[in-house]
Amino acid sequence: MIVVLDSGCSLKQKASVVRFIERRGGRLLVSEIGEETHIGLIGTEAQSLAGEIESMPGVAELRAIAAPYPQVSRDHHPENSEVRVGDVRIGGTEVVVMAGPCAVEDEDQLAAVGEVVARFGARMLRGGAFKPRSSPYSFQGLGEEGLVLLAEVREQTGLPVVTEVVAPEDVDVVGKYADMLQIGARNMQNFRLLSEVGAQSRPVLLKRGISSTVEELLLAAEYVVSAGNPQVVLCERGIRTFETTTRNTLDISAVPVLKRKTHLPVIVDPSHAAGERSLVPHLAGAAAAAGADGIIVEVHNNPESALSDGKQSLTLDGFETMMVQLRRIATAVDRHIETRQTYKPIDLARTLPTWEGSVGTNAIKGRKQACNIAAEHA
Amino acid sequence: MIVVLDSGCSLKQKASVVRFIERRGGRLLVSEIGEETHIGLIGTEAQSLAGEIESMPGVAELRAIAAPYPQVSRDHHPENSEVRVGDVRIGGTEVVVMAGPCAVEDEDQLAAVGEVVARFGARMLRGGAFKPRSSPYSFQGLGEEGLVLLAEVREQTGLPVVTEVVAPEDVDVVGKYADMLQIGARNMQNFRLLSEVGAQSRPVLLKRGISSTVEELLLAAEYVVSAGNPQVVLCERGIRTFETTTRNTLDISAVPVLKRKTHLPVIVDPSHAAGERSLVPHLAGAAAAAGADGIIVEVHNNPESALSDGKQSLTLDGFETMMVQLRRIATAVDRHIETRQTYKPIDLARTLPTWEGSVGTNAIKGRKQACNIAAEHA
Amino acid sequence: MIVVLDSGCSLKQKASVVRFIERRGGRLLVSEIGEETHIGLIGTEAQSLAGEIESMPGVAELRAIAAPYPQVSRDHHPENSEVRVGDVRIGGTEVVVMAGPCAVEDEDQLAAVGEVVARFGARMLRGGAFKPRSSPYSFQGLGEEGLVLLAEVREQTGLPVVTEVVAPEDVDVVGKYADMLQIGARNMQNFRLLSEVGAQSRPVLLKRGISSTVEELLLAAEYVVSAGNPQVVLCERGIRTFETTTRNTLDISAVPVLKRKTHLPVIVDPSHAAGERSLVPHLAGAAAAAGADGIIVEVHNNPESALSDGKQSLTLDGFETMMVQLRRIATAVDRHIETRQTYKPIDLARTLPTWEGSVGTNAIKGRKQACNIAAEHA
Amino acid sequence: MIVVLDSGCSLKQKASVVRFIERRGGRLLVSEIGEETHIGLIGTEAQSLAGEIESMPGVAELRAIAAPYPQVSRDHHPENSEVRVGDVRIGGTEVVVMAGPCAVEDEDQLAAVGEVVARFGARMLRGGAFKPRSSPYSFQGLGEEGLVLLAEVREQTGLPVVTEVVAPEDVDVVGKYADMLQIGARNMQNFRLLSEVGAQSRPVLLKRGISSTVEELLLAAEYVVSAGNPQVVLCERGIRTFETTTRNTLDISAVPVLKRKTHLPVIVDPSHAAGERSLVPHLAGAAAAAGADGIIVEVHNNPESALSDGKQSLTLDGFETMMVQLRRIATAVDRHIETRQTYKPIDLARTLPTWEGSVGTNAIKGRKQACNIAAEHA
Repeated sequence: MIVVLDSGCSLKQKASVVRFIERRGGRLLVSEIGEETHIGLIGTEAQSLAGEIESMPGVAELRAIAAPYPQVSRDHHPENSEVRVGDVRIGGTEVVVMAGPCAVEDEDQLAAVGEVVARFGARMLRGGAFKPRSSPYSFQGLGEEGLVLLAEVREQTGLPVVTEVVAPEDVDVVGKYADMLQIGARNMQNFRLLSEVGAQSRPVLLKRGISSTVEELLLAAEYVVSAGNPQVVLCERGIRTFETTTRNTLDISAVPVLKRKTHLPVIVDPSHAAGERSLVPHLAGAAAAAGADGIIVEVHNNPESALSDGKQSLTLDGFETMMVQLRRIATAVDRHIETRQTYKPIDLARTLPTWEGSVGTNAIKGRKQACNIAAEHA
Repeated sequence: MIVVLDSGCSLKQKASVVRFIERRGGRLLVSEIGEETHIGLIGTEAQSLAGEIESMPGVAELRAIAAPYPQVSRDHHPENSEVRVGDVRIGGTEVVVMAGPCAVEDEDQLAAVGEVVARFGARMLRGGAFKPRSSPYSFQGLGEEGLVLLAEVREQTGLPVVTEVVAPEDVDVVGKYADMLQIGARNMQNFRLLSEVGAQSRPVLLKRGISSTVEELLLAAEYVVSAGNPQVVLCERGIRTFETTTRNTLDISAVPVLKRKTHLPVIVDPSHAAGERSLVPHLAGAAAAAGADGIIVEVHNNPESALSDGKQSLTLDGFETMMVQLRRIATAVDRHIETRQTYKPIDLARTLPTWEGSVGTNAIKGRKQACNIAAEHA
Repeated sequence: MIVVLDSGCSLKQKASVVRFIERRGGRLLVSEIGEETHIGLIGTEAQSLAGEIESMPGVAELRAIAAPYPQVSRDHHPENSEVRVGDVRIGGTEVVVMAGPCAVEDEDQLAAVGEVVARFGARMLRGGAFKPRSSPYSFQGLGEEGLVLLAEVREQTGLPVVTEVVAPEDVDVVGKYADMLQIGARNMQNFRLLSEVGAQSRPVLLKRGISSTVEELLLAAEYVVSAGNPQVVLCERGIRTFETTTRNTLDISAVPVLKRKTHLPVIVDPSHAAGERSLVPHLAGAAAAAGADGIIVEVHNNPESALSDGKQSLTLDGFETMMVQLRRIATAVDRHIETRQTYKPIDLARTLPTWEGSVGTNAIKGRKQACNIAAEHA
Repeated sequence: MIVVLDSGCSLKQKASVVRFIERRGGRLLVSEIGEETHIGLIGTEAQSLAGEIESMPGVAELRAIAAPYPQVSRDHHPENSEVRVGDVRIGGTEVVVMAGPCAVEDEDQLAAVGEVVARFGARMLRGGAFKPRSSPYSFQGLGEEGLVLLAEVREQTGLPVVTEVVAPEDVDVVGKYADMLQIGARNMQNFRLLSEVGAQSRPVLLKRGISSTVEELLLAAEYVVSAGNPQVVLCERGIRTFETTTRNTLDISAVPVLKRKTHLPVIVDPSHAAGERSLVPHLAGAAAAAGADGIIVEVHNNPESALSDGKQSLTLDGFETMMVQLRRIATAVDRHIETRQTYKPIDLARTLPTWEGSVGTNAIKGRKQACNIAAEHA
């Protein structure tokens, strides 16, 4: 329910309305839409307050909320939102490229990939440390060791890190190292996890579930935002259909559809959609042309021996070639991809959180350096 | 990898092989298939032991495991498994009916429904206390209060309780009250949750994800079993397709397909598949005819005012009518549905776990009794 | 638009209304629904007549037609329709079994299959002479030679024949031999073909398209009926979904959904849905339990060497076993499958149409007999 | 089966092999792949000739054909094929835009749309005269009258015409007026129709069925090509999935997938995929970025009153805006869209076929002119 205030409503009247709603346990959201001031009431109990609110001084009228996801809807927030991750702004004029291996495997792999993707225009580093796998017998990721490596390569390249979190109890540890938390497709309706990442302060990359509708994706984003965290980026990554020549079917239309329905940024993951590297540059270009605010791609220095998703990972050369094309397409739609000539690491003190624990005893190569890095910020 | 022992292998030789594998950290599974004794080695490290095992006395040969879900596969476990919940056996000759409201709303509702479904042949009581909902603003269930009510109505009716658990951290509290833990469709690939219910001792009802393949369902079951809990019942509940006249498309073929691939029991949820009560009896009958080991249906004493899923809930009368028909179909396929004349509560001491905490301070009607019940078993 | 006549409307007034509509070129449909007399006006021009009709004597009111398929809808035709094929009634109390090979291959095959399926309870013979095949290089059927063989085996077994017609120009020749014309799934929206079979007098078996909605199936049936042929039987045969363990996903819910929406009979094809013979009996049983008026199954005397669909064809033994079970399930839902002890051919003069041409010059085995049979009825 | 000739094979030896195959009734396809000469044998009987062919002089080896669609596969035809329609080349460096109304409604509409789309860069005129409609009561198109109008507007604009043919018996009449015959999505597996358009000489636009796989689309194209017509353009137009916010789900990945598998040109229909005009420019841009050889879009001078598909038709202004953007994207991927400053009609004598009949008696506006045009070429 939307309470529209009278144009002559005094600040005192406004405060009374707000206080009344809060006292009755209502959750609210105040916004200025053009000339009008709106107070959004969320939740099933809103209707019961309608009678009393309607008769309060300063209230012009009550309206129904059209979208069931009022906070992420563009209805009451017409401008695009920008989500900042370190010095990167997602949702602005740049087409932001996030790149890195599917799974973090070891320091050499990650450093090699990170260095090259940074050189050719990636603005963020991706890599999985906690991997959700269909089979209990598949490689499940390096866990915290992988997070340490990611933080280390961030130091070397200056690229902020996005990585997946798979369970509510891991949110703290992932948040210690990562700059942005990814909710994977399989967890898009893990509502407890959504609430958990909504209750912390890192920006969130929310991937669409493999068979989730656009509406369900927006409702999932509403879980995060309604829990207190407005920094959500949506990601289309392919849906499950009858067609099997690609791993999933990239729903490219979801990009303009989402951009109309929500003010949140929207990016595309062509790697998981395609499942096959030769298709990735074509889908990345299509995403930029369709209006995506960014793409996230898998890149590996040696895809044939990757522990997961090697078939769909770009080679280092392939990434470079794709970026040349992608830049031209971005320009054609009045966007841009920045070319950085030097790789001065950004000041991580601003983004790396306090880190005060040990990371277990089975140390792996590169671990020590990573601990030192983290310790500097402790 | 399967180690096939020689037909003349001595018990001592067999013990040596088992000990060798265990010392090297391998996980194993011994089964007798016809005349042969098989030792299944699970996990990625199995291959590294192959050379040494092959040359041990008593070993006939090594074979690859065909199915990626060795413990739930019928390959190495040809007989049907029965899962016991209280005095109910799922996977035997009975077609087990589980019934109750979608969400537990209050004591009167649950008692009314429980009493009637027990009278007409339900063998277990279902009801949601923790509800996963697409919107953050929908009714999310009564939580532990709902669990208390379920335990109470179990006392009244003698029906063991199955209820959903939505997050790893809730497994303990749900396990205190419920006889069987349900993993809902949205959480079928919440691998942390699967491992958690695999590490406790209550039987598990695992629902198929809305767009999960049969293979992914079996892999999810393997997560539970490989974590230590072999008592898993699978549930087909409709998949997402292009057809929208029903809420989901019941994949009735999944029943015979699953029965061939796995030794675990398979049941069907016609309510969520149909989304419309008038279809439920037809789909329940189809399930029994196709070989399902049971069905789980939503029943409400006043569907029009239900807090969730009212449209698809059977009325009390509708449940009675359905059961008459279902019994005849069960008989036609050489199964049966027991008619109990009296409702002597079973001895819950056998099934209700130790319970030693309080359930919070905002008590609701019926709460006190339930606490007492639980306290008796503390 | 529905014109509801006043309860005191005279026959003369009724005739005036009907004449007025016909003079204006409107197509209409008169039915008695309970106490009320309804005149249905079909087509886009109906609305333009509303004003004049409303003021005619004897007219009580005008109502919008809810369903876009007025003639097949149950709204204005509440009772079940029966479709007769020879002495077989589809849509009555019997569960009608149609059986035979996917493709007619030669006389021996068809005779062997026909004789056995008749003995165990099939009431109609199926078999493809014109085969729609995805590849231009696959076996396309025997064409008219196949039709001749079908007519011959009808003589031997007394079973009426249903066979597919794939193009408008073949309707005449198929109608010469067959008792019922099948429109296959790929042609469900071949509207020219639908109109053509609607303009002749053989009953039609209309299969649901692989990705057609229930609504589209009913609209396709409306094409046939609105062209003049009310004898349509609908057939659910599996839809295309993401699941690939079965050839298609049998949408078992479509059976009760269709039975509520239309008065036409509904049958199920478990063979094409499953794509694998071991599943067929389970799905056939499910169909009967869900309320289907019949099933159509593929049976082959030597499935391993079948020219098409061998994998999903039942063996002769498999058919016998299935029928034992199916009979019991039919009884459980108050239907029946007749057991005929003797196979006295029915009098085909009643069902075989005039046949006056030759069938070409490249005769195959069994051709001559067939010609004679046909000639008798010329 | 592929017969690979020896590099030293003489022309006489080659001729012997070809003659041998032809005498035995085999269908063949000779191509030069790099240094090698391949003779492709198509059809089921190929295998039986293998023994004899293998021992013929000049034959190096026999290979299996990988793709079941040998003539449209890129395997034996590595270069892109160009399909010419009048002076337009599809499959070359240009991104060819085809535009016009969904259905031809009257002369004013068609002329207005044709004039504008030509001015802003469309190279072909689309418009439906025979419309396949789900309901028998929907507008079914103007039929031949519509074809006449299309031919007339071709005269005015110089744009070659593409229009749909829905039944084998209409191929002749459509071919009299149209420059390219479209097979619509619903008829992609109407094999008789495919053979018919394969047996005439107009180029064919083959749309992917709503639930057809890429493989099935290629097999459908093989039907046309194997019947003798190599001029086939494929069109991705959205597939049916669970997502309903768009009319269909544009399978953008199908563009690069098809381009790898076949040498035929591939275009995209963003209008039917989106079902909503505001999405069309985004999808058109995505198509060009993904490598499509063209797009086909619906444009209407007054979409609100269109007889079909108004919701998804671009306005004239919308078309102009889209073209500005599309040109820039085409350039970014090294393609182009030609800007024609003047609209000199091309010499239709080259493309309009002989036309010698009348078009019936219920003349509509514009009809006479069209007859004259046609008559000139008679």
